[in-house]
Amino acid sequence: MTDDAIRKSTPKSTPKSIPKSTRDGVSRRRLFGLAGAGAAVGAAGFAGGFGVAHAAEADAFDPARSSDRGAGDRYPFHGAHQAGIVTPAQDRLHFAAFDVTATTRAELVSLLREWTAAAVALTHGDTVGGGTPGAYEAPPPDTGEALGLPPSRLTLTFGFGPSLFRDAEGNDRFGIDDRRPRGLRRLPHFPKDNLDPARSDGDLCVQACADDPQVAVHAIRNLSRLAFGTAALRWSQLGFGRTSSTSRTQQTPRNLFGFKDGTANLKAEETRLVDQHVWVGAADDPKARWLAGGSYLVARRITMNIETWDRTSLREQENLVGRDRPEGAPLSGGTEFTPPDLTVKGSDGKPLLTADSHVRLAHHSQNDGVRMLRRGYNFTDGNDALGRLDAGLFFVAYVRDPDTHYIPMQTRLAARDGLMEYLQHRGSALFAVPPGVRPGEYVGQALFT
Amino acid sequence: MTDDAIRKSTPKSTPKSIPKSTRDGVSRRRLFGLAGAGAAVGAAGFAGGFGVAHAAEADAFDPARSSDRGAGDRYPFHGAHQAGIVTPAQDRLHFAAFDVTATTRAELVSLLREWTAAAVALTHGDTVGGGTPGAYEAPPPDTGEALGLPPSRLTLTFGFGPSLFRDAEGNDRFGIDDRRPRGLRRLPHFPKDNLDPARSDGDLCVQACADDPQVAVHAIRNLSRLAFGTAALRWSQLGFGRTSSTSRTQQTPRNLFGFKDGTANLKAEETRLVDQHVWVGAADDPKARWLAGGSYLVARRITMNIETWDRTSLREQENLVGRDRPEGAPLSGGTEFTPPDLTVKGSDGKPLLTADSHVRLAHHSQNDGVRMLRRGYNFTDGNDALGRLDAGLFFVAYVRDPDTHYIPMQTRLAARDGLMEYLQHRGSALFAVPPGVRPGEYVGQALFT
Ligand code: HEM
Ligand code: HEM
Repeated sequence: MTDDAIRKSTPKSTPKSIPKSTRDGVSRRRLFGLAGAGAAVGAAGFAGGFGVAHAAEADAFDPARSSDRGAGDRYPFHGAHQAGIVTPAQDRLHFAAFDVTATTRAELVSLLREWTAAAVALTHGDTVGGGTPGAYEAPPPDTGEALGLPPSRLTLTFGFGPSLFRDAEGNDRFGIDDRRPRGLRRLPHFPKDNLDPARSDGDLCVQACADDPQVAVHAIRNLSRLAFGTAALRWSQLGFGRTSSTSRTQQTPRNLFGFKDGTANLKAEETRLVDQHVWVGAADDPKARWLAGGSYLVARRITMNIETWDRTSLREQENLVGRDRPEGAPLSGGTEFTPPDLTVKGSDGKPLLTADSHVRLAHHSQNDGVRMLRRGYNFTDGNDALGRLDAGLFFVAYVRDPDTHYIPMQTRLAARDGLMEYLQHRGSALFAVPPGVRPGEYVGQALFT
Repeated sequence: MTDDAIRKSTPKSTPKSIPKSTRDGVSRRRLFGLAGAGAAVGAAGFAGGFGVAHAAEADAFDPARSSDRGAGDRYPFHGAHQAGIVTPAQDRLHFAAFDVTATTRAELVSLLREWTAAAVALTHGDTVGGGTPGAYEAPPPDTGEALGLPPSRLTLTFGFGPSLFRDAEGNDRFGIDDRRPRGLRRLPHFPKDNLDPARSDGDLCVQACADDPQVAVHAIRNLSRLAFGTAALRWSQLGFGRTSSTSRTQQTPRNLFGFKDGTANLKAEETRLVDQHVWVGAADDPKARWLAGGSYLVARRITMNIETWDRTSLREQENLVGRDRPEGAPLSGGTEFTPPDLTVKGSDGKPLLTADSHVRLAHHSQNDGVRMLRRGYNFTDGNDALGRLDAGLFFVAYVRDPDTHYIPMQTRLAARDGLMEYLQHRGSALFAVPPGVRPGEYVGQALFT
């Protein structure tokens, strides 16, 4: 029975002025005609099947078209790489890690298919279930809290954890372990790690970024709902403010230490460096060719000892970071985007960028030339019984190979970074992020075929 | 030693191109020249002492000047009423409840003075510490994470809990118990309440609302820091999306049940109703005249059984709410802003707004004509071990008298509202919200003088 037929059969339900097409159909905005500033850009050209509509607009983003803030725009889900990596970092994050509860490969593949279709719709600003209006006697296909909101530059980025390939006993869970990427193992225990298993690892992950948190939360909630019976949310994290910029078009934001964060980050425009340090190459891993064009995602939930930091002098804070606070200029001199000069010394003969300063230790010159694309977020999750805010940085980085691009640097930072005194690593996870999805495909398809 | 003198004495710290005035001084934006769309409006006219600069712009907000979204604007802290009540509900919330750890009235008053000065600065888009640049050898007066951000329509609204007046043993803690407002008692236990003491009550509260969550979080963090040694954070709550509109200039947002929320809310423009139902009148409470022009704030952390709701048919969802989902029109007919007609019956002779529907039970005609100003927010705080999102509605309402305007309605809803099956009340608090602050005064001053 259609929604409309049911409505008609409802005892004397006084007619409402809602055109019947509004019931949960197609575009969120076209129907509700509300939305913020940038709402004009968008769903207009979209009417039918996803694949077709998106084929023309594939291939990542054009930074020239993007501005720093404001909702209403959208990024295509399809492309050579998944969106949400070099995409200019949106303002808000909802990150979710799932454990697969189903035991068959068919169920896993079916979930990935469903997630892909939903991701296409959601990133487009449509409802889950796309053009099919929900039946009045059935639960709505979409949970509805984003109705009327623009796409808000939502991106959904999917990843596969090491435990998806083999379980703790070493069993090949879904017949894919022979294709497990070389770098995809549980991250090692780093010095001073204080990890909470309930905030670590996971079989699958979804990074939802958007300029409107309601849109990001709506996406995770609906993907989690679609997963019911196949995968369950293991942990999840909201991030309220970005701590990096990934495009030269963006201003550098600040982390909860009050410092600009993202200045020396890899930027989308540096395509050569991005190719070299972010995307897995076609020949990187013969056993895992399906990952070519993908990347690895490192997630670390790092809490800050805010109260201790706040009692540290500005001089000490700046020395620990290696940059000044007002402008983010390296202590070796210049302005924000002047490259740090690790050789400049003070009159005491010691480097101005001290041996334990974060920027020195993380600088590519000290790390065999490796770079990473950081894409983290500030978080605040209430407070503890002593009244201390549970706040910090949800660190996210994309790298071509964790063995060369993350583990050595993290080991060095954990041992020597002066900031470590103010930090606690409470969550940790590593995921292999498959390449972009072509219309008609599902995310990670090459792994299963 | 000034910041600059120290910098000069630093061994060969290569000169940076930062004008010295940038170090933590005055306006966040003027110095950093960044900021979003609306940044042009703002700090320009502000240079010196708070009181003076603000005297001219007192007296609440002018809805005609406000638009629904966008940062960069600001609301004055001073006025006849505190800002953050009839102020058009901003997009994001950080709410904090504090317990006073100090034991003397002087310390409490001194905290309120400090908070007031900080609130003036913060809502203006300035740093804590105002025009005084921090010394380089001292911790910065402001934690810095909002440097460069516009005021983002930040409002800070302060309240006093019943426990500020008398402790659990009935002792008058600060010599103010004879002025305790009549309605200011711990809220009673309502049917099905499942309260977590760690998320309930508190001596003081601060509601920080802003369009940018980083600005709201920055404000709570800095107020909490100023309180060190005098008051400690008891609980705190982030809200990522508003669930009400408080001005006719605003679109109605949606809660996590997917329904428009705020349609029939009291609006700032309904000044007669607001005077009647929100502001405490001069003659309301002879013992607590200091509260005249203030209000009571009810906070309830209500978690939603999202997964159960999501398995409920659209028909049932709409019947439980009493409005349709696409448009928010009452089931008795019409469009969103058509008043619900509780008398309209279906062919089965039963009212279309059923006896257990939320809108019927909450309607003023069923509640002795009382209205409230709702100002709640959606929240999502991770998930539980079963993978269920810890999400819901952080309900905030402002009323003239909780005994007439909140407790009876909550009792009725708790017992009969069909939505209750999908809800759990986990946190609860009541605060008396003093009237607005005049330049030179501190918040709640009339209570102590
Ligand atoms: C809460 C923890 C952290 C904080 C507060 C923090 C903060 C900062 C800041 C303020 C900068 C300078 C601005 C910039 O270039 O972005 C920076 C740079 C950097 N950070 Fe971190 N960071 C943290 C954790 C990490 C971790 C875990 C890693 C990697 C293992 C890392 C890698 C880097 C890199 C590669 C740079 C750029 C260095 C350069 O080339 O100049 N950071 N970080
Ligand atoms: C999570 C819990 C709640 C949800 C999901 C919810 C949802 C809604 C919705 C969808 C509406 C209709 C739209 C509107 O007029 O705003 C509404 C109206 C209303 N709600 Fe709630 N509500 C909740 C809790 C409460 C509580 C605790 C109270 C007060 C004790 C309350 C008081 C009201 C009032 C007074 C109205 C307006 C009724 C009218 O005059 O039409 N709500 N609510």
